[in-house]
Amino acid sequence: MNYSKIDEFKTKSNSDFLKLAKDLKPRLYQEKICPDQDYENKVLRKNDSIVIDFKDHFVGYLSFTLETSGSHFDAPAYLKLNFAENEAELDEDSSTYDGWLSKAWIQEEFLHIDIMPQRVDLKRRYAFRYLKITVIDTSEKYGVSFKDICLRAVSSADMNAVKDVNTPDPMLNRIDYIGRKTLQQCMQEVFEDGVKRDRRLWLGDLFLQAKVNYVTFKNYDLVKRCLYMFAGMTFDDDRIGACFFTEPDFAVDDTYLADYAMFFLICVWDYYEATGDRKTLEDLYPIAIKQIDIVLKNNVKGFVYDDIGDSFTAFVDWSKGLNKQASVQAITIYALGYGAKVAEFLGDIDRSIYYKKCKDAMTEAALENFWDQDKKMFVSGKDRQISWASQVWMIEAEVVKGQEAKDLIKRTMEFNPEYKMVSPYMYHHFIVSIIKSGDLELAKNEMKNYWGKMVEAGADTFWELYNPLDPNESPYGSTMVNSYCHAWSCTPTYLIRKYFVG
Amino acid sequence: MNYSKIDEFKTKSNSDFLKLAKDLKPRLYQEKICPDQDYENKVLRKNDSIVIDFKDHFVGYLSFTLETSGSHFDAPAYLKLNFAENEAELDEDSSTYDGWLSKAWIQEEFLHIDIMPQRVDLKRRYAFRYLKITVIDTSEKYGVSFKDICLRAVSSADMNAVKDVNTPDPMLNRIDYIGRKTLQQCMQEVFEDGVKRDRRLWLGDLFLQAKVNYVTFKNYDLVKRCLYMFAGMTFDDDRIGACFFTEPDFAVDDTYLADYAMFFLICVWDYYEATGDRKTLEDLYPIAIKQIDIVLKNNVKGFVYDDIGDSFTAFVDWSKGLNKQASVQAITIYALGYGAKVAEFLGDIDRSIYYKKCKDAMTEAALENFWDQDKKMFVSGKDRQISWASQVWMIEAEVVKGQEAKDLIKRTMEFNPEYKMVSPYMYHHFIVSIIKSGDLELAKNEMKNYWGKMVEAGADTFWELYNPLDPNESPYGSTMVNSYCHAWSCTPTYLIRKYFVG
Repeated sequence: MNYSKIDEFKTKSNSDFLKLAKDLKPRLYQEKICPDQDYENKVLRKNDSIVIDFKDHFVGYLSFTLETSGSHFDAPAYLKLNFAENEAELDEDSSTYDGWLSKAWIQEEFLHIDIMPQRVDLKRRYAFRYLKITVIDTSEKYGVSFKDICLRAVSSADMNAVKDVNTPDPMLNRIDYIGRKTLQQCMQEVFEDGVKRDRRLWLGDLFLQAKVNYVTFKNYDLVKRCLYMFAGMTFDDDRIGACFFTEPDFAVDDTYLADYAMFFLICVWDYYEATGDRKTLEDLYPIAIKQIDIVLKNNVKGFVYDDIGDSFTAFVDWSKGLNKQASVQAITIYALGYGAKVAEFLGDIDRSIYYKKCKDAMTEAALENFWDQDKKMFVSGKDRQISWASQVWMIEAEVVKGQEAKDLIKRTMEFNPEYKMVSPYMYHHFIVSIIKSGDLELAKNEMKNYWGKMVEAGADTFWELYNPLDPNESPYGSTMVNSYCHAWSCTPTYLIRKYFVG
Repeated sequence: MNYSKIDEFKTKSNSDFLKLAKDLKPRLYQEKICPDQDYENKVLRKNDSIVIDFKDHFVGYLSFTLETSGSHFDAPAYLKLNFAENEAELDEDSSTYDGWLSKAWIQEEFLHIDIMPQRVDLKRRYAFRYLKITVIDTSEKYGVSFKDICLRAVSSADMNAVKDVNTPDPMLNRIDYIGRKTLQQCMQEVFEDGVKRDRRLWLGDLFLQAKVNYVTFKNYDLVKRCLYMFAGMTFDDDRIGACFFTEPDFAVDDTYLADYAMFFLICVWDYYEATGDRKTLEDLYPIAIKQIDIVLKNNVKGFVYDDIGDSFTAFVDWSKGLNKQASVQAITIYALGYGAKVAEFLGDIDRSIYYKKCKDAMTEAALENFWDQDKKMFVSGKDRQISWASQVWMIEAEVVKGQEAKDLIKRTMEFNPEYKMVSPYMYHHFIVSIIKSGDLELAKNEMKNYWGKMVEAGADTFWELYNPLDPNESPYGSTMVNSYCHAWSCTPTYLIRKYFVG
């Protein structure tokens, strides 16, 4: 099961935090986009269709004027609208969809228009570059034509406010731009994970989005708002949820992912480093460190994280059958490092010492339990599974460092473990692990290699999922619900601006 | 081709008449209907559905509250709504529809609901007794339930304002009630022909609806409004259109049907007789008699109506391949009779004498050209086609009368011509022809026999089409667009109240 569901879900709220988050609701930038295409003179009848290319990815609200020609309309017009982020989506037949994610995410609408001419304003928000309008029927007596097909694009970030990187490498510039565009699209009233599907705040995504935001739009208040949301409503045992809803009212989802929960502290610290806003750091520190304490208490026995198999109690990656034990062992070590640092900074010295000790003990336990001396790679779980994720996180958590880390990366790339990286989210951590090993050139090349292939495939924004070996891969049973503008894929902009330029 | 379409359609308007019609726009009676059924506790998930029976036919606007259970909704709910006048419609698969009338008439909606709980108010008007709601999808994490499924029913007539006939014959009482209900449903801002499909004013339907209205709701202003509409905008050669639109603005349709146009004078006269409103009679007389003059000039040569075959230049009936020549010959005679009467009443004596002469000459020509001495029936067209319609109209126009008419009816029923009556509209004229022949008992029995079978088949309102021998007959290529509450079928209420009681 790759989702979580709790029958009697109980939560705990901090009304001051929630109020603060509410008050920080951003005003959205709006832009009217009306593609200049030759569709206005086309008269459409039963089964005719037009495709409008908005020339870039947008999030927003569609409107158009529907006019008639021929006799007075003697029946409603019946239209089908398909919104597509990726042109290939236009050819997909939703009636065949049989994935496990809701079919409701497929961006299609059936509309009856009773009176024409009429300005039609769609109330729902869509994420798309391509719009296909099919006339299911008019009548024998009249046809329809479309005028002023326009989109009111929305975002809480302004693309024009950020300068291009202008490196000598056009691909690097393009990757930076698309990453920025991806983030901008996903910056709405919260940091959304995807604008086509999910459309909500996930903690693991926020962790990365915030990093990109600090080197681009610098919309600090949106990060602050999201941090106070997560802190403002938690599970009743103080665990921070992996995901947060804002409609019809603020509500934490009943999904807990241990890795995401531990990232909260780092996310708060990143925010402090970017803003110097000590009040927020102090406000959120208690609930942030609790996330580490809860993991230590619930999931760590003798400094070893439980073998959680491929369960959805931590995320790590979408990779099927991936054993997550070694990865979350490493992520806990990584979080303890930040815990020790932040505790020390705030004068919480005893805790800082305690976290440091735990970190060292878990690092030692990691080498003892997960390092395979023969293969010279990390293994995970009772079946000693070798995956990319385990190597990546052990390096990112600095369980191995320097030349050893470099060697491990080389070895992993040569060995190419069966359990691969699936998501750009995991690829981001792979690039970071290479950077941590000290090989900036390899990191840049690997980044260009992965995200560059999406650019070459025509991406306007970076995709939720990209497997260069299988472009039709979907963890959801069908590409129809894949998201082609997904925030966790926007990180190259951060990596480029932080590590690869200047 | 069973519809009309004029490429360069030109009209002529009388702004005073149109203003008068606009000012007579009725206020609609509204009633809130919330079926008391056990659906509120049902939790629905993917592919689940509920059927709500509103227990009677209604026209109006649906609303419901959509709630969720389980986890917080993490995807929109995607619903399909099917509205059905007739329960059998719920089992029809609209994706297979291939008729020639617009598929847009099929009462189905696909709705995405993004935020729950939500009160959903549908903006379109539907005609239905049954509502099926199918949950296309929610998500694995939540289900939906429905609360307060309500209908705001609308009509410009009040069912409670008319007393039952209370005859000793329960079937007669039931037919009277259903006829009245049918008319009431179709009385909206105009007299609509059907409330599911077409939803607009047709002159031939108005002609009958007005007659029923005078013996029931007595909503004289609604008739007046419709009469002034037809007179207020005509073809530019003064022909009155067969059909009139009111949205987005008043507009005559580019359909001309000679029989309907000639009925206009009779409809105006009926209105005068019911109300004594001489001003309206005088206002509309000039355009009304023009309809007869135009037919005489355009379609009648040597007192014989052109052989128009089964063309859609006159209506008569939907019967496929029906030769309409003899029927419109008779209808012209019938209209000339009224023309002479009304002209005389208004002191337009020369015209009255002229119409009388034309009537006599056309009657003589009818007997000479259309009476088959061997078969002792009327024939029509160059192939001397024998149809029910020809006999009915020749009797209604009194080309044959008394015992001859009685004999002809008997002969027709025995012979049972291949070209049958298809619509209740034609059946109405059949009953009237029997009444004109003087055999009230046969008229009543035939009426009960035809409309009574619809009652026995479970009709809440009378149907647009009913062939006792083929319940699945449709002139449109599919029953999916058949209308089950159609005004031209409501006439038994008039016949009962005028001829069969008291």
